Amino acid sequence: MSPKLRRVLQLFARLPGVGEKTAHRYVLHLLTTDPSVAEELGRAVSELHHVFQPCSVCNNLAEVGETPILCDICKDHKRDPSVLCVVAKVSDLLALERPGTLRGRYFVLGGLLSPLEGVGPEALPVPRLVERVRQGGVREVIIATPPSVDGEATALFLRRELGDLGVSITRIASGIPHGGDLEFIDPVTLGRALDGRKVI
Amino acid sequence: MSPKLRRVLQLFARLPGVGEKTAHRYVLHLLTTDPSVAEELGRAVSELHHVFQPCSVCNNLAEVGETPILCDICKDHKRDPSVLCVVAKVSDLLALERPGTLRGRYFVLGGLLSPLEGVGPEALPVPRLVERVRQGGVREVIIATPPSVDGEATALFLRRELGDLGVSITRIASGIPHGGDLEFIDPVTLGRALDGRKVI
Repeated sequence: MSPKLRRVLQLFARLPGVGEKTAHRYVLHLLTTDPSVAEELGRAVSELHHVFQPCSVCNNLAEVGETPILCDICKDHKRDPSVLCVVAKVSDLLALERPGTLRGRYFVLGGLLSPLEGVGPEALPVPRLVERVRQGGVREVIIATPPSVDGEATALFLRRELGDLGVSITRIASGIPHGGDLEFIDPVTLGRALDGRKVI
Repeated sequence: MSPKLRRVLQLFARLPGVGEKTAHRYVLHLLTTDPSVAEELGRAVSELHHVFQPCSVCNNLAEVGETPILCDICKDHKRDPSVLCVVAKVSDLLALERPGTLRGRYFVLGGLLSPLEGVGPEALPVPRLVERVRQGGVREVIIATPPSVDGEATALFLRRELGDLGVSITRIASGIPHGGDLEFIDPVTLGRALDGRKVI
């Protein structure tokens, strides 16, 4: 195989979930469609880091333009500034936007505390989060880190850091997913579903 | 969502099997890894059509360089020129190379006859294939189009076109795949497995 082909396959295979076969499919597809598609995709990919940067307020994806760099959510005056939802990563923010019910604002941590992997509090922009809450205007902080070991550790740490600021601190519910069959749900999730039961 | 982000997502979603969510994952991954990865991938993708062209002999993927443009298989003098395997597309050629048993050469049609979709013989480079066989040196033509309606129609057409040239024309076997359970195999395949039975 030519070194150039091997290289482009390796580059595609760095994308999440892409192996050698999928990389081959992508390259063959691009080579058998109009050259303008490969050219435009290539240009867009190589410019990604110049066009998008973290939002200076919340770390969400934002298009570079005016200074300070603000994402569409931080720019939107109709979003409720009193509800602040803390997430681990931008894709979690996008997932939470899908139901369309949360009209507050966000803060993207860019990671989680991980005692096992040696990721400590200094790796996360917690001082910026604390400063934002301290400035006022926030009534509730929803901690929407995932219900995993690292996500729970991060949630506990954030509750401690934000505990003295006089805001309500909430945690998203963990339990049986919609349509889930109890028979096939793991015991930790079932335990959480029981612990989190509500009067109906 | 910003128009530029929407555009790059649309471009990724043109790749086979990529939808909006996967496109999002790719973009977020590229934005959260070293900028050099996105830059190099982008450059490689935009240059694809300049770097790779169809082989002037067999239509396989070939790196542009010397003239005439030849793929690695056509350049390889150790490959047997007396066995010519005809495939529909480059990915089929790559699949047939995997077992490593076929040491012959190839001819990529770039498509199949499709009476239902109005694709006639004039859409395929059959005259070039006939000319190549007519020039001599080919002992066997293996028709490796898929065992679908269009693949069979193409195989029958090729057999007729190549029939008078004094070469052996063979067709790859259709039957139950390795590890396949007879209970779950469709009746057409089972019929073919019976028709293609061999004395053991």
